[in-house]
Amino acid sequence: MDIKKMLVNDRVKPNLLKARYGVEKESQRVDLSGNLVKTDHPKSISIRDEHPYIQRDFSETQMELITPVAETLEELFNCLAAIHDVAYRSMGDNEMLWPLSMPPQLPEKEEDIVIAKLKNFKNVRYRQSLSNSYGRRKQMISGVHFNFEFGDELLQSLFNLQSEIKDYQHFKTEIYLKTTRNYLHYRWLVTYFYGASPTSEKNFFEEDSMNEPVRSIRSSKYGYTNHGNVQVSYSSLQNYISNLSLMVKRGILMEEKEFYSAVRLRGGHHVSDLEDHGVRYVELRNIDLNPFEKNGISYEQAEFLHLFLIYLLWKDEGSHCDEWVKEGDFYNDVVALEHPLEHTQFEVDAKNIIDEMEHFVEILDLTISDTLFVNLRQMLMDPSKTLAGRLYKESEKSSQGQVATHIAKENQKKSWDKPYQLKGFTDMELSTQILMFDAIQQGIQVEILDRQEQFLKLQLKDHVEYVKNGNMTSKDSYVSTLIMENKTVTKKILQQHGFRVPIGEEFNDIAQALRYYDMFSTKPFVVKPKTTNYGLGISLFKEGANYEDYQKAITLAFKEDSSILIEEFINGTEYRFFVLNDKLHAVLLRIPANVKGDGKHTIEELVIQKNLDSLRGRNHRTPLESIQLGELENLTLKGQGYRIDSIPKNDEIIYLRENSNISTGGDSIDVTDQMPEDYKKIAVDAVSALGAKISGIDLIIDNKEVPAANKNAYGIIEANFNPSMYMHIYPYKGKSRRLTMHIIHYLFPELL
Amino acid sequence: MDIKKMLVNDRVKPNLLKARYGVEKESQRVDLSGNLVKTDHPKSISIRDEHPYIQRDFSETQMELITPVAETLEELFNCLAAIHDVAYRSMGDNEMLWPLSMPPQLPEKEEDIVIAKLKNFKNVRYRQSLSNSYGRRKQMISGVHFNFEFGDELLQSLFNLQSEIKDYQHFKTEIYLKTTRNYLHYRWLVTYFYGASPTSEKNFFEEDSMNEPVRSIRSSKYGYTNHGNVQVSYSSLQNYISNLSLMVKRGILMEEKEFYSAVRLRGGHHVSDLEDHGVRYVELRNIDLNPFEKNGISYEQAEFLHLFLIYLLWKDEGSHCDEWVKEGDFYNDVVALEHPLEHTQFEVDAKNIIDEMEHFVEILDLTISDTLFVNLRQMLMDPSKTLAGRLYKESEKSSQGQVATHIAKENQKKSWDKPYQLKGFTDMELSTQILMFDAIQQGIQVEILDRQEQFLKLQLKDHVEYVKNGNMTSKDSYVSTLIMENKTVTKKILQQHGFRVPIGEEFNDIAQALRYYDMFSTKPFVVKPKTTNYGLGISLFKEGANYEDYQKAITLAFKEDSSILIEEFINGTEYRFFVLNDKLHAVLLRIPANVKGDGKHTIEELVIQKNLDSLRGRNHRTPLESIQLGELENLTLKGQGYRIDSIPKNDEIIYLRENSNISTGGDSIDVTDQMPEDYKKIAVDAVSALGAKISGIDLIIDNKEVPAANKNAYGIIEANFNPSMYMHIYPYKGKSRRLTMHIIHYLFPELL
Repeated sequence: MDIKKMLVNDRVKPNLLKARYGVEKESQRVDLSGNLVKTDHPKSISIRDEHPYIQRDFSETQMELITPVAETLEELFNCLAAIHDVAYRSMGDNEMLWPLSMPPQLPEKEEDIVIAKLKNFKNVRYRQSLSNSYGRRKQMISGVHFNFEFGDELLQSLFNLQSEIKDYQHFKTEIYLKTTRNYLHYRWLVTYFYGASPTSEKNFFEEDSMNEPVRSIRSSKYGYTNHGNVQVSYSSLQNYISNLSLMVKRGILMEEKEFYSAVRLRGGHHVSDLEDHGVRYVELRNIDLNPFEKNGISYEQAEFLHLFLIYLLWKDEGSHCDEWVKEGDFYNDVVALEHPLEHTQFEVDAKNIIDEMEHFVEILDLTISDTLFVNLRQMLMDPSKTLAGRLYKESEKSSQGQVATHIAKENQKKSWDKPYQLKGFTDMELSTQILMFDAIQQGIQVEILDRQEQFLKLQLKDHVEYVKNGNMTSKDSYVSTLIMENKTVTKKILQQHGFRVPIGEEFNDIAQALRYYDMFSTKPFVVKPKTTNYGLGISLFKEGANYEDYQKAITLAFKEDSSILIEEFINGTEYRFFVLNDKLHAVLLRIPANVKGDGKHTIEELVIQKNLDSLRGRNHRTPLESIQLGELENLTLKGQGYRIDSIPKNDEIIYLRENSNISTGGDSIDVTDQMPEDYKKIAVDAVSALGAKISGIDLIIDNKEVPAANKNAYGIIEANFNPSMYMHIYPYKGKSRRLTMHIIHYLFPELL
Repeated sequence: MDIKKMLVNDRVKPNLLKARYGVEKESQRVDLSGNLVKTDHPKSISIRDEHPYIQRDFSETQMELITPVAETLEELFNCLAAIHDVAYRSMGDNEMLWPLSMPPQLPEKEEDIVIAKLKNFKNVRYRQSLSNSYGRRKQMISGVHFNFEFGDELLQSLFNLQSEIKDYQHFKTEIYLKTTRNYLHYRWLVTYFYGASPTSEKNFFEEDSMNEPVRSIRSSKYGYTNHGNVQVSYSSLQNYISNLSLMVKRGILMEEKEFYSAVRLRGGHHVSDLEDHGVRYVELRNIDLNPFEKNGISYEQAEFLHLFLIYLLWKDEGSHCDEWVKEGDFYNDVVALEHPLEHTQFEVDAKNIIDEMEHFVEILDLTISDTLFVNLRQMLMDPSKTLAGRLYKESEKSSQGQVATHIAKENQKKSWDKPYQLKGFTDMELSTQILMFDAIQQGIQVEILDRQEQFLKLQLKDHVEYVKNGNMTSKDSYVSTLIMENKTVTKKILQQHGFRVPIGEEFNDIAQALRYYDMFSTKPFVVKPKTTNYGLGISLFKEGANYEDYQKAITLAFKEDSSILIEEFINGTEYRFFVLNDKLHAVLLRIPANVKGDGKHTIEELVIQKNLDSLRGRNHRTPLESIQLGELENLTLKGQGYRIDSIPKNDEIIYLRENSNISTGGDSIDVTDQMPEDYKKIAVDAVSALGAKISGIDLIIDNKEVPAANKNAYGIIEANFNPSMYMHIYPYKGKSRRLTMHIIHYLFPELL
């Protein structure tokens, strides 16, 4: 089997970069001064021990962030960014994540390091044993585990090129074993480039045993390693499994997961799964936290690891497996303990490897970051460009602790900058971003089935729910949404249930609509397309209309839809009631786009000023939309005798729109607590009459202090089957209503 | 209160013709020879005594058809036509409805007239009492009851013009009382125009007591009247109620409903409701079946009755109420017993009334049929143009019985002409028409909430279900339909559940799609828009494609949608599986539009011939679509070396399309019984995996004799959330599957 030839085969090429990835990343929680916190794991994060994204590692302060399996590096880093956002904003704004592998200053007494307060007793006992065996200090070291699986397409195409190994599973195992042995042999290169634990903070070492800075304490013999009597061979899967079992049997390891090798072979949850399934992926464990990346690892690093693993599969290995691996341990320890600003003694080897890798990439025309090899060569030429070098140099100006604290603060700031966004997914609809945030926080697995369509799969154990656009779920029946979509049908049903709706007629052609002029001419009425979005094609006549205007309005509405409605206009204030599962959760008042004069600035200047608010933006990716100064706004101003260069008086409110939609720059004001109960009941009952579970229903109320039972106290305008949520969660004024969390709890009542 | 002035007031005018209507119509069931049937009421009609549309009157053979309340005459006649369709097609093709008020030849022995076999014992006992009191023969007379209610807008506007009567309900009652008394006084005019029972058939009269033909036996003293001692005054509502109660109390009437007056005042179900609610509408009972109308009453007749009632409200009445009514009884009996070809002795009065009515219509510019007054005047000038006159003249050529039998046959033929249609609603989607048919048959109340949108409200007692497009219901969850709508999501979920779906990719821009050329170039694959209807924008490459064709196909697909799919093409035959509530109900094979050669005719001629089938038509209003001969058909022929004027060999099948959609002229073939169970299970399980309850799922099966569990035995193409039903109900070949009835039973399990 000539793997070198096979890898450059034309049939293999298109699949060469296909892979699956996963990252586990630990960090210590610290306060704003960089001191280890004394608080518990955040309450807002579901604290089930098996939380899929955010857990505790050894100590209560050590947060472990875990990505799901990703098919691309983009996906992997999107997930990492999102989980970081959730972790940060769940901790509250008094805590941050320590960006270094070496922990911040530890308590003087080792016992003051708090073991994770897990529910499962077995898990706690395991940590107590670790504490006894290694001491709590060493367990406080953090790092990144990089899980890597070759793409099945790649392995299949390789498998098809040979005939020596008949069994595909066996073939895969051999591929991973070779790659792993080579990785263990050459891992000193990773330590050189990305080692990033040059010095420790106070109270880490009992004595000051490390006076000189190094590249990576963590990857060295002083770091996170097993005792010397742990010996596991990678010569064959059988040896690996039996060695490990023996270690546990003899009590040298408490559990298989105590095996702190730089690479673990993975087949499933347990080592025994390897026997059944062979090696399915490898876990690289020798990655220090990258202090300069919020995610703890950079995209380029991950790219390097991927290419490095392919290269190691390609590269010949030594004939004596165990020897080959043992040599690697030796080289790695040497490099790990070199001074961070010194050239490595294996520089020539390193250059050769990089040359070979780059050549390989060129031959196969693989698409990778332009800067990757430039940066690798720079780091070889100049050790101060390596991670350890950079961190050490920066620390020289102040201290490593201060540098780390500063970085942590920057990271924290970015997480709170636009708290409505979920990093990695900012192209998605805002309500969906917030829902994903809440799902991740609650420990619900989130899978994006169709990103453009905002289609999610949420899973909690065996319970699966699909959600589109934030609140289109399995809880609503199909026909109830069709009812809400159809204004005529909505009105008929509400009317049959005794609710007040504006009387009106539906028309399917202009001539027919014109004939009804007499019916409406002297009343307040509104002309609108039967289905509409964002208020397009709607004309309002508060005191009736002449025939010409009537005609114009009808023509306008027919431009938007083939059916239009002409309806009685009900006077009063329009409120949006958000009803979920027969409960009222929020009431919102929407005010048309407006600015408040100060007697100095023009309307245009006031608009620009108001638009500076970070809540405002474009295309529904912010809780509020920027106010426009287009044709309609100019017309609205003209109607009030203003132009955009007029200077309104102090405290004068100038409206730029007639309609109050948030999408056209309107303000959202939460009035849930101010709305009397009887009107809330009307909203809940009306939604129930429509057979709906999730709805935003719009009521016009003349005077909310007058009882709802009074004649004509209110009118129901419409019910929306996919009501906006973000405007309730991040209102312009008033209390935030976390509707996305209510959706999560409605879908997964077992969480409560 | 000057009602004459009030009625011509400008504010009243727009509301003058607003009214609500209802019809009850009885007919005897007869066999194809015109003899009374011996069969029971049709089993297919739900035989609940309270069936809202189709019941039995006195005898088991006497069908009563009842319309719901209609807001317009158009609606009324649509309902009447539809209920007739259901009644006819429920009886089967061996029975018809006798078109005359006078029954067909009756059994010699009166006891052989079978009293309706109702479930409710009280109802049977009441009929037995009628039998004892009036004899069964008289109870076999049929007629039309016309329920009429003035529009609330009209009554309100009249009410607002006066101040004498303070209470609206009281005002309404007075309006109806005056109209009723005038109707009873002048009803001889209705008898003249529309009386239509000139002679009786054998065994109706015990002796031959009626030797001479008349205008209306039914409306005369020989017809359907109470005994002479029944006296009820219409002078006031109080008198009406107390007189009626007294009659029942004294046993002169068994029940209030035995009161056979020409007009009943109606307030609700019982006379006592009148006390609480006042008069809400009137029931005109003196209408003979119109032999020349399938519905038993013509639109013009209903229009006349409406105008006549307004006229009677307008017209002064005699000062002695009871006298005035009694005079009417006398006049009516005179006219009823006149010879049908004689001028009436009240001709001058009649002309005056018609003049006044026409004048009234002209002054107020009311919109009515052009022919109404022309026809009324003709009938006055020439008695042979009246209904009785026409029937009598036609009967002279043969016999009344033969004329009636001939008419009945014509009516029956029309009902079976296009059995998939529901008359009155043929503009609606075919599946909705069939569903409405089944609902009416099952005694479910059908209300059309939005006709254009095929939105129905179905109600059985308190149980309401809304249905759009025939099978969009409350049973499917919203998200399950969104899943099915999204092919990418559908595929992902099916794949996750272990079903085979074609592998493929989704693309959102052309450049990206072009880059994937190598992935598909040599495999069978298909390019299609992400969402599509009727197969637009789909290109199929059974043996891969060159780059140019690949490019063309992608451009074509992007014309239909902003996202496209490129998928592996799975070879085999595509079947549509209709799954409802985890059960498989139908499997359909669709074959592309085709003709079979006969060695003589050109393809064009064969297409014209095939299109003559009454199952074929346009725009989905027939079970099959006409085959077109457009650009695509010509191209398809060209590809096979044919033109439309080619003459195919005998038995040669020529395909005119590549795609097998019914909408482009394809043939539908039911293969439910031929499909092996394991494939049916795949379909049911896949629909269940999507969380759907109603779905048409498309499987491609290479060879259905090969077990479904075999590798690549099948592939699932897509699942449809609003699958066509009519193609299963009226397939081109194979067994009909009444899916609409399954839907009804799924929505209303209490029916089973």
